[in-house]
Amino acid sequence: VKLWGGRFEESVTDAVEKFTESISFDKALYKQDIMGSKAHASMLAKQGLMSDSDRDTIIKGLEEIERQIETGQFVWRTDREDVHMNIEAALTDLVGEPAKKLHTARSRNDQVATDFRLWCRDAIDGIISRIKNLQIAMVELALQNEGLIVPGYTHLQRAQPVLLQHLLLAYVEQLERDAGRLLDCRARVNFCPLGACALAGTGLPIDRFMTSDALGFTAPMRNSIDAVSDRDFVLELLSANSITAVHLSRLGEEWVLWASEEFGFLTPSDKVSTGSSIMPQKKNPDPMELVRGKSARVIGDLVSLLVLCKGLPHAYNRDLQEDKEPVFDSVKAIVGMLEVSAEFVQNISFNRERIQKALPAGHLDATTLADYLVKKGIPFRTSHDIVGRSVALCVSRNCELQDLSLDELNSLNPIFDKDVYEYLGVENSIKKFRSYGSTGSECVAGQLDYWIDKLSISRER
Amino acid sequence: VKLWGGRFEESVTDAVEKFTESISFDKALYKQDIMGSKAHASMLAKQGLMSDSDRDTIIKGLEEIERQIETGQFVWRTDREDVHMNIEAALTDLVGEPAKKLHTARSRNDQVATDFRLWCRDAIDGIISRIKNLQIAMVELALQNEGLIVPGYTHLQRAQPVLLQHLLLAYVEQLERDAGRLLDCRARVNFCPLGACALAGTGLPIDRFMTSDALGFTAPMRNSIDAVSDRDFVLELLSANSITAVHLSRLGEEWVLWASEEFGFLTPSDKVSTGSSIMPQKKNPDPMELVRGKSARVIGDLVSLLVLCKGLPHAYNRDLQEDKEPVFDSVKAIVGMLEVSAEFVQNISFNRERIQKALPAGHLDATTLADYLVKKGIPFRTSHDIVGRSVALCVSRNCELQDLSLDELNSLNPIFDKDVYEYLGVENSIKKFRSYGSTGSECVAGQLDYWIDKLSISRER
Amino acid sequence: VKLWGGRFEESVTDAVEKFTESISFDKALYKQDIMGSKAHASMLAKQGLMSDSDRDTIIKGLEEIERQIETGQFVWRTDREDVHMNIEAALTDLVGEPAKKLHTARSRNDQVATDFRLWCRDAIDGIISRIKNLQIAMVELALQNEGLIVPGYTHLQRAQPVLLQHLLLAYVEQLERDAGRLLDCRARVNFCPLGACALAGTGLPIDRFMTSDALGFTAPMRNSIDAVSDRDFVLELLSANSITAVHLSRLGEEWVLWASEEFGFLTPSDKVSTGSSIMPQKKNPDPMELVRGKSARVIGDLVSLLVLCKGLPHAYNRDLQEDKEPVFDSVKAIVGMLEVSAEFVQNISFNRERIQKALPAGHLDATTLADYLVKKGIPFRTSHDIVGRSVALCVSRNCELQDLSLDELNSLNPIFDKDVYEYLGVENSIKKFRSYGSTGSECVAGQLDYWIDKLSISRER
Amino acid sequence: VKLWGGRFEESVTDAVEKFTESISFDKALYKQDIMGSKAHASMLAKQGLMSDSDRDTIIKGLEEIERQIETGQFVWRTDREDVHMNIEAALTDLVGEPAKKLHTARSRNDQVATDFRLWCRDAIDGIISRIKNLQIAMVELALQNEGLIVPGYTHLQRAQPVLLQHLLLAYVEQLERDAGRLLDCRARVNFCPLGACALAGTGLPIDRFMTSDALGFTAPMRNSIDAVSDRDFVLELLSANSITAVHLSRLGEEWVLWASEEFGFLTPSDKVSTGSSIMPQKKNPDPMELVRGKSARVIGDLVSLLVLCKGLPHAYNRDLQEDKEPVFDSVKAIVGMLEVSAEFVQNISFNRERIQKALPAGHLDATTLADYLVKKGIPFRTSHDIVGRSVALCVSRNCELQDLSLDELNSLNPIFDKDVYEYLGVENSIKKFRSYGSTGSECVAGQLDYWIDKLSISRER
Repeated sequence: VKLWGGRFEESVTDAVEKFTESISFDKALYKQDIMGSKAHASMLAKQGLMSDSDRDTIIKGLEEIERQIETGQFVWRTDREDVHMNIEAALTDLVGEPAKKLHTARSRNDQVATDFRLWCRDAIDGIISRIKNLQIAMVELALQNEGLIVPGYTHLQRAQPVLLQHLLLAYVEQLERDAGRLLDCRARVNFCPLGACALAGTGLPIDRFMTSDALGFTAPMRNSIDAVSDRDFVLELLSANSITAVHLSRLGEEWVLWASEEFGFLTPSDKVSTGSSIMPQKKNPDPMELVRGKSARVIGDLVSLLVLCKGLPHAYNRDLQEDKEPVFDSVKAIVGMLEVSAEFVQNISFNRERIQKALPAGHLDATTLADYLVKKGIPFRTSHDIVGRSVALCVSRNCELQDLSLDELNSLNPIFDKDVYEYLGVENSIKKFRSYGSTGSECVAGQLDYWIDKLSISRER
Repeated sequence: VKLWGGRFEESVTDAVEKFTESISFDKALYKQDIMGSKAHASMLAKQGLMSDSDRDTIIKGLEEIERQIETGQFVWRTDREDVHMNIEAALTDLVGEPAKKLHTARSRNDQVATDFRLWCRDAIDGIISRIKNLQIAMVELALQNEGLIVPGYTHLQRAQPVLLQHLLLAYVEQLERDAGRLLDCRARVNFCPLGACALAGTGLPIDRFMTSDALGFTAPMRNSIDAVSDRDFVLELLSANSITAVHLSRLGEEWVLWASEEFGFLTPSDKVSTGSSIMPQKKNPDPMELVRGKSARVIGDLVSLLVLCKGLPHAYNRDLQEDKEPVFDSVKAIVGMLEVSAEFVQNISFNRERIQKALPAGHLDATTLADYLVKKGIPFRTSHDIVGRSVALCVSRNCELQDLSLDELNSLNPIFDKDVYEYLGVENSIKKFRSYGSTGSECVAGQLDYWIDKLSISRER
Repeated sequence: VKLWGGRFEESVTDAVEKFTESISFDKALYKQDIMGSKAHASMLAKQGLMSDSDRDTIIKGLEEIERQIETGQFVWRTDREDVHMNIEAALTDLVGEPAKKLHTARSRNDQVATDFRLWCRDAIDGIISRIKNLQIAMVELALQNEGLIVPGYTHLQRAQPVLLQHLLLAYVEQLERDAGRLLDCRARVNFCPLGACALAGTGLPIDRFMTSDALGFTAPMRNSIDAVSDRDFVLELLSANSITAVHLSRLGEEWVLWASEEFGFLTPSDKVSTGSSIMPQKKNPDPMELVRGKSARVIGDLVSLLVLCKGLPHAYNRDLQEDKEPVFDSVKAIVGMLEVSAEFVQNISFNRERIQKALPAGHLDATTLADYLVKKGIPFRTSHDIVGRSVALCVSRNCELQDLSLDELNSLNPIFDKDVYEYLGVENSIKKFRSYGSTGSECVAGQLDYWIDKLSISRER
Repeated sequence: VKLWGGRFEESVTDAVEKFTESISFDKALYKQDIMGSKAHASMLAKQGLMSDSDRDTIIKGLEEIERQIETGQFVWRTDREDVHMNIEAALTDLVGEPAKKLHTARSRNDQVATDFRLWCRDAIDGIISRIKNLQIAMVELALQNEGLIVPGYTHLQRAQPVLLQHLLLAYVEQLERDAGRLLDCRARVNFCPLGACALAGTGLPIDRFMTSDALGFTAPMRNSIDAVSDRDFVLELLSANSITAVHLSRLGEEWVLWASEEFGFLTPSDKVSTGSSIMPQKKNPDPMELVRGKSARVIGDLVSLLVLCKGLPHAYNRDLQEDKEPVFDSVKAIVGMLEVSAEFVQNISFNRERIQKALPAGHLDATTLADYLVKKGIPFRTSHDIVGRSVALCVSRNCELQDLSLDELNSLNPIFDKDVYEYLGVENSIKKFRSYGSTGSECVAGQLDYWIDKLSISRER
């Protein structure tokens, strides 16, 4: 019989029981639930709402239940609805009468909000540590590929040459903001709803600061209705995950491209590739395809949660039970995406020779040439036009800018001098960059140093 | 070792294996996979690509595997990646050499597309049958509540009186379109990709019409690249589900409202209600809250799938492995929502007395009064204004329109005559409706007849 | 003063007026609104609810207003809220008293539903015609590129050779389903809500079949509450658009890839390319990037509408005013995407020489080689392994399969004979395909014929 | 002719020009664009890349253009694509040669990122100030309704009594976190991409710190590729808006409910209500319906942007042009929602008498009664059961808990004493609350004081 059954005469139907149960997924909160109950029992005892001996019995019972759960001996029962009722009922089975005092000055509404915040806090810490690992892997990959110039793209058209290191550090920057967003979210998550009870608080003499402290929260939430109504903390977490997922989807896209026959810039090792059931030659960069693909579920999870909360009146509504699965799924996905991305980073090699061979194509030095003209005093807009016509000439002759003779260049504009050849070609071009944040070798080296320090990466290799 | 491992020297890492496996969820396709393989083997034998005896061995082996799966004896292995490889490898373990011929002229790309279309076809049939059940439950509820007038709302403000039957049939109409959408989707799902192989078809002499027929498809798909690339059939299914989910969320919202103390129009039985862990008096209409809430995941699943497919080049990309979970989840949710809604419909009673007592409030007869004036020859816009001022008078006197004396009415406009009282009051008002599709008793009775016939509901009760 | 102002004593604040107005966007419905009002007036006259002369005055007035709108003379007023009130009030200004009869037996609730369905019906027709244009452009591009073999991809890795025509027809197939989905949607859109009035119908003797016929609808909607409550018809339209958008995003992705320096398969003409403000050499395939990008808003619009409708009780709620902008935006985007895609198709050329030069890479013939072994009696799974090892050999020698000597092949398996060379190389490989729907030349030619007929494309070129 | 036209021989087609233009919406950035150009010109002059006189000419020209724009004299040209090219070309028309130097060491890629960050920074400040206004309005509404007890709900079923002030402060809490999220976002937005140029930085001797300072940024962005590639700052802004929108949708839902005939808790004034075109008696709380409804577009805008960015390779892709409209739309919507919510708050009155009359229903004191038993030493779980049976008794007798005699109570449990009546009834119940954050009068008064101080609200009224 349900623990809330006093006024009920009939049980719910099987279909309703099955449809409304949450134990199949919220059992993931067991650790947080037990931790919360222990803190709550201690507080109740301290406040005289339960004897010390009842408290000790309860805590011991809860520890036994935790042990049973972790060793797979615990039987989760659908007729006991959720993780809270399963544990409380099991505790009653185990220790009897004292267990009936545990739910004093507590509702499942504040209990689940507390459990869920504790779970999210851990999840955030876990994600941040994976972000850091991926950043470190990126920086180490950069360190292994010093001096390698790759084409930089805009519109997927060759734009200007960049150092591979510079590109890798762009991902490190994005990941840093992802971590920052999670830290900000963590600060808002970390307030304690326990003691808000159903929605209004209680008349019993509880000490919410004591439970809040015991559970490592910053403080108890100030308003009991807010405490049980709102799920903005998970909306924020799933938003942060979605942004990270978008970043990773872009990395996935890029590296799938780069691993293609046509780009041929990188080769994943067998350890991070898979084959085809029909085509014997295939070797696919599946992990990064799935990293890209899994961004979809992270975004879908966020949408689910936004739709869920839209238009609900205060305070707790049963709809909110649906808040957990999207969060669990999002966190699992993002952790997997980060871990596998790091693993991929550690198992690819760049095809330096092939990259260098391909570099002359695409007029990557055109903008450097325009800057040359600017330095000679030509207004940029005019320089742009002159170089544009130079490129048109190259296209018609199927050659590169550095292949044009000085006469040919001068036919377009007399200002070209023979020092122009110091600006042409990808290697020359890369040497010219100097602005802060640019792909110039010194700038990039400085940035690398910054990240090596910040991420505490060893310089010895 | 992987079945595709010929050119590989190293195995994937554990993290990659775990991240890329799909067996944990695509095993749900085992029945379709085995059905497809049996049809494929029969075709290969008929086309001389395998002996009849190999075919028989394979089919018997597949049936044994199906038996093992359904009795829980089959061991799903993550290192065998997915349902296809698990079954093929188990078949090889079981029957040896002949099994190695099964994958002739087939790729996992066309195989999974075939399995998935078969699965979706079944899912659609299952959803449609639940829609029909809910429609029947609605009509039967209508039959039990003949003559009951309830307030009709716009903006959640009382608008005009309607027959409860009329409102219930509005839901039946929406569900009918939901079913129609699924039928249209089914017609597009039901084409056979098998034989498209990796993406280009094959040079082996297969007969795609034979397998298509054997599996109950309308025809083989005309273009092999399209056959393995596209997932529009599941996008369409999840779109249809999302629209149904929105309909059900609105029903959920309405009935949660109606079950509130403030509305008090309906009472769910204990069999479809749950209580509170802290508040002893609570009896909550949880099933309909969750019906409303679960619409969120159905929408989220659609979004996941749209995001997944966005921007992928042809043909199969590993991202597409992520197509299954949202579909499984959406179908499970929508089936549950429909079933539980029907169960709820069967377990509620309308509080006729309370509804009637509340009916006079809200001036539900104001529009009928305006129509009265129109019938007397006053232009509608002028009638609207006169009645608007009549209502203002009622508000100031805290009374209803029918409480105004003829003198008072005439003070607003001399055209009012004593026949006006035949138009005032909710019962009079409802009697006046006569337009096709309106809430007039005869119209509604006619609609009920239509649905009783269409849904083959017995008239005997 | 508002037309509904009878019972009101104060006007809404400026902020509320501005926030709640819809005239800034729903004026797009003016043509449908006037068409509906004309049909409504004719019906009212026929039913004796208005004189023929009033009807004529109203119709003439509405035509004058339509003229004013189309010549830019009409002044839309925010204080008149929406398109319906603007037109009705302007009609009253123009023709006086008779105009006050127009709103008889009509509410804005059924009026806007009618207008919007008419608008959507036109929009669907417009989209379908653009889909057909794009299909035709694709087929014509195919006809211009007979015999051109390109690499087929899975996982963006080279998989098997395919005829470019085959790939182009894959898009034609997808577009055909997109059109089919819209046609099914159109059939559900095309029912008439007019006469449902506020939500309950009316007691006035209207003829809903007459207005339904006059406006080209299949029939009046059967249930008045359903008629004004539901927006599933736009949810379905936006779902269909989203699926089309996903298809186009994939085309966009593919062609952006193919236009890159690295692929180099196609060159867009200057007419469909743009340049860079800084990099003089750039020539970007912007239209297809934007086609890909605009899929995002089409999906976002669908989500907006799903979220909007979630959890609303019956019948009309003001939230529903927000239904129009996403629909207008989605339709505009999808029309633009289809038109520009067709324009791009008509302005690209394939770089036959470069493609052919690149074809040997990637072992595209490996599966054909496996089929060769199958024909020799080797079970496919064994063949796959033998070819896998052959490819590994090629990789180690940096050569292609056709470069292996018979001795080398025989070292892997003795069954290879010299006829194997008829199966190696991309041209040989393509010749072998023969299954229905495959990339074999005859199959593709047959499919092309099918589409030329179906799309009524001239065979003369 | 396009400013990037040097290498082009043909113009884009009309359809492409229309499809790819952004001037129709990105002109909203004119102020930021001009501000950025002025800072850039000053820096170029300081660094010797332009003369002081050219700088002065440019700045004067830009100021003239700004004046023209703000007075409506400026002609935006579609053939000039976007706001950047429109202003640069107009500047060239106006001041000639010097204008051609403005685009030195700058690309539209870094320019638009700079403009957009500046715009978002302003938008965030604007939203935060509206949040504060709504908080203030809520607190003032609370101050006007001291002592008013309303039913608190869970599952929309009556749960426990709460002070209206307590509920209003719950919204203030949520809004405070919304503001906090925006502040965190602002800190990440406020870095300067200018000088990243196309993607790689430049070889010209620019000073990025100077422009960053001049524009009020915290610092220049560290990595040029990141600077032009990423749009996480707008994803974050739109995420924050979505969460705020969900909060407001819940407020909208609640107040629409409360304004219904059935709840009847509040009455909006005519100034924030609208009527019906057909039903003369209607007075609808449209602003709050639209607040609820507009949450849909805010969520849809976020989804658009997430889908947009998913799977793009580095660096700038034309898809990103689609980033602006969702942001503009989201910000406009959220600002409107906040403003109108505040206006609604200022124009509603609570129906104290009606609320009080309705309060006895729903056994709001049941939990207080259970607490009474706990204080008497009964374990809570047992208390819950006893009170549950007491409620069942009330339901069968159609009375309230306080109507039960002591004998009747004692028939359920002998521990009840006559002091029980100090715990029954809503007023008694509310007096008992005392936990931190609860709805007890002192707690709520303390919270009110907190917010009055924090929001600097005058205590004089």
